Amino acid sequence: MMPRGSAELRGEHMAALEIESHTLLTSPKVSRLLERARANESALDDWQSANLREMGRARDQAIATPNSLVSRLARATARAEVHWVEAKQQNSFALFAPHLEDVVGLVREKARLLGKALNLAPYDALIDEFSPGLTGVEIDKIFTALTRRLPGMIAEAIERQSSTKPIELGTKISVSKQRTLALELMKTLGFRFDSGRLDESEHPFTGGFPGDIRVTSHFIPGNPLSGLMGVIHETGHAMYDFGLPEAWRFQPVGRDRGMALQESQSLLLEMIIARSRPFLQFLQPILEKHFGVAAPEWQVDNLYRLLNRVQRSLIRIDADEITYPLHVVLRYEIEQRILEGRLAIAEIPAAWNEAMENRLGVRPQSDTEGCLQDIHWAGGAFGYFPSYALGAVIAGQLYQSLRSDIPTLDEDLAAGRFAPLFGWLQENIYSHAARISTPELIKTATGKPLSATPWLRYVEGKYLES
Amino acid sequence: MMPRGSAELRGEHMAALEIESHTLLTSPKVSRLLERARANESALDDWQSANLREMGRARDQAIATPNSLVSRLARATARAEVHWVEAKQQNSFALFAPHLEDVVGLVREKARLLGKALNLAPYDALIDEFSPGLTGVEIDKIFTALTRRLPGMIAEAIERQSSTKPIELGTKISVSKQRTLALELMKTLGFRFDSGRLDESEHPFTGGFPGDIRVTSHFIPGNPLSGLMGVIHETGHAMYDFGLPEAWRFQPVGRDRGMALQESQSLLLEMIIARSRPFLQFLQPILEKHFGVAAPEWQVDNLYRLLNRVQRSLIRIDADEITYPLHVVLRYEIEQRILEGRLAIAEIPAAWNEAMENRLGVRPQSDTEGCLQDIHWAGGAFGYFPSYALGAVIAGQLYQSLRSDIPTLDEDLAAGRFAPLFGWLQENIYSHAARISTPELIKTATGKPLSATPWLRYVEGKYLES
Repeated sequence: MMPRGSAELRGEHMAALEIESHTLLTSPKVSRLLERARANESALDDWQSANLREMGRARDQAIATPNSLVSRLARATARAEVHWVEAKQQNSFALFAPHLEDVVGLVREKARLLGKALNLAPYDALIDEFSPGLTGVEIDKIFTALTRRLPGMIAEAIERQSSTKPIELGTKISVSKQRTLALELMKTLGFRFDSGRLDESEHPFTGGFPGDIRVTSHFIPGNPLSGLMGVIHETGHAMYDFGLPEAWRFQPVGRDRGMALQESQSLLLEMIIARSRPFLQFLQPILEKHFGVAAPEWQVDNLYRLLNRVQRSLIRIDADEITYPLHVVLRYEIEQRILEGRLAIAEIPAAWNEAMENRLGVRPQSDTEGCLQDIHWAGGAFGYFPSYALGAVIAGQLYQSLRSDIPTLDEDLAAGRFAPLFGWLQENIYSHAARISTPELIKTATGKPLSATPWLRYVEGKYLES
Repeated sequence: MMPRGSAELRGEHMAALEIESHTLLTSPKVSRLLERARANESALDDWQSANLREMGRARDQAIATPNSLVSRLARATARAEVHWVEAKQQNSFALFAPHLEDVVGLVREKARLLGKALNLAPYDALIDEFSPGLTGVEIDKIFTALTRRLPGMIAEAIERQSSTKPIELGTKISVSKQRTLALELMKTLGFRFDSGRLDESEHPFTGGFPGDIRVTSHFIPGNPLSGLMGVIHETGHAMYDFGLPEAWRFQPVGRDRGMALQESQSLLLEMIIARSRPFLQFLQPILEKHFGVAAPEWQVDNLYRLLNRVQRSLIRIDADEITYPLHVVLRYEIEQRILEGRLAIAEIPAAWNEAMENRLGVRPQSDTEGCLQDIHWAGGAFGYFPSYALGAVIAGQLYQSLRSDIPTLDEDLAAGRFAPLFGWLQENIYSHAARISTPELIKTATGKPLSATPWLRYVEGKYLES
C-alpha cells in the first residue's frame, strides 16, 4: 500500500535498519558471547542449544556479507520491487530490466561471498538461506524425479479429463463480495484477526511477524476462484506463523523452519485440502451464500473439475497441482543461468518463453504473463523458487501421515471441522519452530526421510486412477 | 490499521528501535564527534551549524533519559493507545485508566530527569520537546491574553449569530463519497499522492516521514463537514512535511520546527483558509458534484454560517475557531495537575467535566465525549496540547502577513489557485526547517515577535464586526 514515489525512501529506511542489525550481529562482542555460550553448551537444554546454533548460523551469514553490500542490496530491491509493479502493469520488461540488473549484480556478489564463507557453491549458499539443511544435490534428485514423471502424467491427465470438461464460471463476482467471503473463510480456518489482517496487493503474500501477520490477496472479478485459492494458500502460511511457540518468539530458534516448510503449509492447504471433494462440500454453501450463485457450474462436482483441471497454462500461482512443479523447475534453471552469467538480463523474456514452450507446451504472449509475473527476483530472492516445488513434495508426505493419523479427516473437512488438521500440524510442524533441521523435522513428523514418492503417489491416485 | 491484539508486539518492536537509537545517540563516540565538530564550528556554514545544534539538543535529551525508561515508555504507550481505542468505543474510562496510570508514571519520571538535565521545570521540559524555544512563561502570557478576551467574545458572537441561524445539513453522505471528495481536494491543494496516502482511523493524524506521508481521517456519514475539515487540517501538516528541504531530509536540522509550528500550518489551512468565504466559493461546486447536493443548506452563505458557528461544544477537533483555544487551555491545566500529582487518574473524568462547565459552559454526558476524546495522553504526549493554541495564534500572525504580501489572496482561493498561498509558506516557513528557533522563524516570516494580538484582531474582525 506504500505510495510508489516512496520506494527510494523505504529503501533508505530498510538499509539503515539492515546496517544496524548487521553491525550488531557482526560485532566482536557477539562473537565472544557465542564462544562463551558454546563452551558451556552442556549446561543448555535442547531448545537453548538449538537457539545457539541458529544464532551462530545468522552470525556466520552476516559476517560473510559486508555492510556496504547489505545496504546496497536493500536499496536496490526496494527500487526494483516498485518498478516491477509498474513494468507488470504496463507489460514492459524494459522498465524493470535496469533495476533487475542492479539486483542481480549485488545478489551474485552476495552468493559468491556467502558460498566462500560457508564452503558452498554460490547458488547453494542462496538456497541455504531459504531452505536450511536442504542441498542442491537433494533438490536435483527430487526435481529429476518430478521432471521424469510429470510430463507423461500431465499428458495422460489431460487426456482423461477431456471427456468430462468442467463448465466455466461465467459470473463476475465483485471484489468486495470476494473479500467478505475470504474474511469469513479465513476466520473459520482459524486465522486470528486479533493479530492479523487481510489486505490487497498486486501479488498475494504473507508478511509481518508472529503476533501481527499481514496477508494480502489479489481479487479478480472474472476469476473468483483465483483470489480464493490465493487467500487459502496464504492462510496456510499464516497458520504456521500463528502456531510458532510464543516463548521463543524473539529468538532465532523461534522462527519457522525456512521457505520449503512454509510452502509445504500453504500448498498442503491450497492444493491438497482446499481442492479436495470433502472441502468443496463444505465450501459450496458458503459460495452460494456470499456470491448468490446456485447454477450447476457452482456445484461440488464442477468446482472439483475446475480446481483440479490440468492445463498447460502461463501463470504459476494459478497453475494446477501437477503442472505447478514444472513452473518452478523452469525458474530454478533460469535463475541459475542468470546468476552464473550464462543468461543476460535482456535475454530473460526470450529464455522464459522458450522454457515455457519446452516444459509446458505453451508460450506467453506478453511478459506480464511471462517473466514479469512474480516479484521474487525484484526482491533479490534468488534461491527461493525451488522451495515451492519442495513444499509440494513435503506437503504430499505430510498428507500421507495426516490421513493415516486422522482417519476421519475427510468427514472433518466436509463438516468444516479444521481443528484435527491444524492440531496435527501444530503438534508435528508448528511447535518445533527451527529447533531441528528441515530433513529431521520431516522425519520426525512422518517417520520417513524426505522423498518425492508420497506426493507422486498421491497425484497419481488423484489424476490417473479416480 | 494494526490488529488490536498486536499492540504488545508493536510495543516490543518500538522499544527495540528506541533502545538502539538511544544507545547510538548516547554513545561516547557521538559525544566525541560532537565536541570535535564544535571545536571547528567556524568552518561550518549556517545550516551545518544549526544541524550541529540540533544534534546536540537530541543528544542532551537522550542522555537525560535512561534506556530502561525509554523502552518502558514505548511499551506502555503502545498498550495504552490500543486500550484507548477500545475504551472510547465502549465509553469506559475504567478500561483505559490502568494503562494511562502506567504512562503517566513514566512520563512524570521522564519530565523530572529531562528537567534536571536541561535546567527546566519538569513540565517545561516536556513542552520543550514539542515546541522548542517556547517557554512556559510565554505560553502563560499568550494563554492569559486568550482567556481574558475569549469568553466575552464567545458570548457576543453567539448573541450576534442568533439572528441568522444556519440550516443544518440533513443529508447523510456515505463514507466512500466523502473519501473520494477528500482525495480530489487534497490533490488540488497539492498533496503529493506519489509519496503519501490517505487512510482512515479513529482519530485523524499525519504520520510517516517526508517522502512517505500518511494522513488519516475519520468520516462520519451524518457529519460530512467534520471529516472534510479533518482532511484539510491534516493536509496542512502534510504540506509542511512535503516542503521540508530534501537536501537535509535525514538530518536533525531538516525536520519541522516542532508542534506549535506544525499546528500553525494545519490550523491556518483548516480554520482560517478553508472556513473563509472565498474558499467556500471554490468548494461549493465540488460538494455539489461529489455529494449530489444543491439544496439551500449547501450554498456558500449557509456553509459559511455552519463552519463559523460559535458553539459551546464538547469535541475539540470539531470546535469552532474561537472556542477551540479554551479546549486547549483546559487540557493544559489538567495535564499539569496530573503530572504534578495533584489530580489522580480516577479523578480525570470529573475534573474534565467540571472544567468544561467552567470554561465552556457545557458538560459532557459521557467520557467518550469528554476526557477520552483525544489520543495524546495515551501516547505519552503530555506538553503537546499547548501547541494547538499556540498554533492558532501563530497562524493568525502568518495570515496577517500573507494578506499583506498577497493582495489577490481572496481571488486566488475562490478560483482554486493555491500556488501563491503555498509558495509563500514554502519560502517563509517550510524551507527553513529547524534552522532557526520558533520565535526567530516567526520574526523572520512576519517581521514581528510572536504575539496573540494579530489572531485576536483577526477573530474580532470576523466574528464581531462583519
